[in-house]
Amino acid sequence: MKKILNSPADYADEALEGMCLAYPRSYGRTGENGRVIVRLGGGKGKVGIVSGGGSGHLPTFAGYVGEGLLDACAVGNVFAGPAVMDCMDAIRSADGGHGVLLLFGNYGGDKMNFAMASEMLEAEGIATATVLAVDDVGSASREERDKRRGVAGLVYAYKIAGAKAGQADATLESVAAVARRAVDNTVTIGVALSPCTVPEAGKPTFALAENEMEYGMGIHGEPGIRRGPIIAADDMADMMLQTLLDDAGIATGDRVSVMVNSLGATPLEELFILYRRVAGRLREKGIEVAFPLVGRYATSMEMSGASLSLITLDEELEALLLAPADCPYWSNL
Amino acid sequence: MKKILNSPADYADEALEGMCLAYPRSYGRTGENGRVIVRLGGGKGKVGIVSGGGSGHLPTFAGYVGEGLLDACAVGNVFAGPAVMDCMDAIRSADGGHGVLLLFGNYGGDKMNFAMASEMLEAEGIATATVLAVDDVGSASREERDKRRGVAGLVYAYKIAGAKAGQADATLESVAAVARRAVDNTVTIGVALSPCTVPEAGKPTFALAENEMEYGMGIHGEPGIRRGPIIAADDMADMMLQTLLDDAGIATGDRVSVMVNSLGATPLEELFILYRRVAGRLREKGIEVAFPLVGRYATSMEMSGASLSLITLDEELEALLLAPADCPYWSNL
Repeated sequence: MKKILNSPADYADEALEGMCLAYPRSYGRTGENGRVIVRLGGGKGKVGIVSGGGSGHLPTFAGYVGEGLLDACAVGNVFAGPAVMDCMDAIRSADGGHGVLLLFGNYGGDKMNFAMASEMLEAEGIATATVLAVDDVGSASREERDKRRGVAGLVYAYKIAGAKAGQADATLESVAAVARRAVDNTVTIGVALSPCTVPEAGKPTFALAENEMEYGMGIHGEPGIRRGPIIAADDMADMMLQTLLDDAGIATGDRVSVMVNSLGATPLEELFILYRRVAGRLREKGIEVAFPLVGRYATSMEMSGASLSLITLDEELEALLLAPADCPYWSNL
Repeated sequence: MKKILNSPADYADEALEGMCLAYPRSYGRTGENGRVIVRLGGGKGKVGIVSGGGSGHLPTFAGYVGEGLLDACAVGNVFAGPAVMDCMDAIRSADGGHGVLLLFGNYGGDKMNFAMASEMLEAEGIATATVLAVDDVGSASREERDKRRGVAGLVYAYKIAGAKAGQADATLESVAAVARRAVDNTVTIGVALSPCTVPEAGKPTFALAENEMEYGMGIHGEPGIRRGPIIAADDMADMMLQTLLDDAGIATGDRVSVMVNSLGATPLEELFILYRRVAGRLREKGIEVAFPLVGRYATSMEMSGASLSLITLDEELEALLLAPADCPYWSNL
């Protein structure tokens, strides 16, 4: 196992501890189990935004706690949803009396635990609304969109909802509405080239031959659409882009942001090689790119491969996406 | 080859093209060969700072072009130094009549080509000074410090020299002097767990068994000090830290910045697990950490492993390190 760790059982907790030590002005750790990351120095005179999910995807999910992004995040073990108690602690810590938006990926465990947590907190008078990311077009057809997994595109919803919640007149309803619009407008497709190893399992989550890639694979190694030989970067970019344009019906005259995201091991150089082609094709098609993101936004530890996300922007979504945020994993450059 | 690329021969150029498309407000591409990355929107009323080196290490080297960091960077092929003409073009583009600091790693090819370039530019009236990073304690003994390789610690010298050059009274001499002090005060040690593949070679740069790590390995796969079984993260952190403290003579009462750097594939989670231990040990020893950096600063594409760097700070170095900079790969949080 080519990993740097102590006991597999301590992987998630030690990572969170280190993260808070590394960014003492940004992140605080709280909750009964120490599994809640909260924003330091933030006021509470606004709608709170909470996310949650398993470990192993940094900077997703907890890394996006910050001003103009999330207020708190509940963290599970590697690739496992957060516990109900941690969801409750996260929601409580983000609540300032204006309600809390729960914004996370469409996975069974996360949904169930956040639902239980919000139900119990209703009794304490905390109002919540839930918006689920369903951007992974590799996981279900457009007709069954509510079965799609949430992957890297969730970051767009974080940024947009976070900026909205910072506006003076924002309400839980208006923040939830804009988060839902962000989710509705976002599509993602991934390509995996090699797996990662979950510490507690100790062996790779799947196997691919030396010359193989899997198209449409999920960020926990969920099976994709098809498996085949690795193709050239430009062909890969074209295939991913076409899948997304077709699915979302994005066409000439539309304005988008693009995210080229490494699943972990794939280096920046290769993300830029992909982005170069994507940018060129979008230009040819008359689709304008407002704000590209190229880097590691939602990873699967040391998995290699990349995902491509597109969000169709309207005026409000673009303004919220470009609004400043203060977080180690967000740059407005 | 688990890589995303078109032709291996185009890897470096296409990556640079994509980088400039992704950050159109930050990076420009210039030079006869398109192998120079320059800072956009920067004035020239200051000492210029130029670096250079091979591709495959992003964000090192070219990613650190930005306000308060580098003005220009000459880029070679993967793991190969930049050509003389590219060094000349980089220096010319960074020159505003106040002289140019050449700040790069201690590698034969880079040294030779930058030396030739600066000699030729003397005739054009461009004054240069050269400072070489020699932070890798795994590459030679302290007595033969001028034989050491430059690795991730170079980023500290970039940041410090870049901030100095922005001061109104800075001269080529004062910028070079502070860069030299940064280099003198910086030590790094790396641990590799698995190799990377240079596109043109098409096969891994070295081989390690499933349970093996190599201690002191260079960022191009240069052999390290010893090879052995992978050890627990805390033991790895202790070993690396002790190597650096001993080498640099850092002791109780000193003030340092720490960098825990991924060589590429190793995820943030595992960097934080290492940093957690390093921070704890430094606290126990009464060595204060002013500003930790945990992330990907100098990589070897998809190599897995990590490096640890320490820089001993004095008042001026700390102020320069903490000064704001405007670059996609630098955060002051």
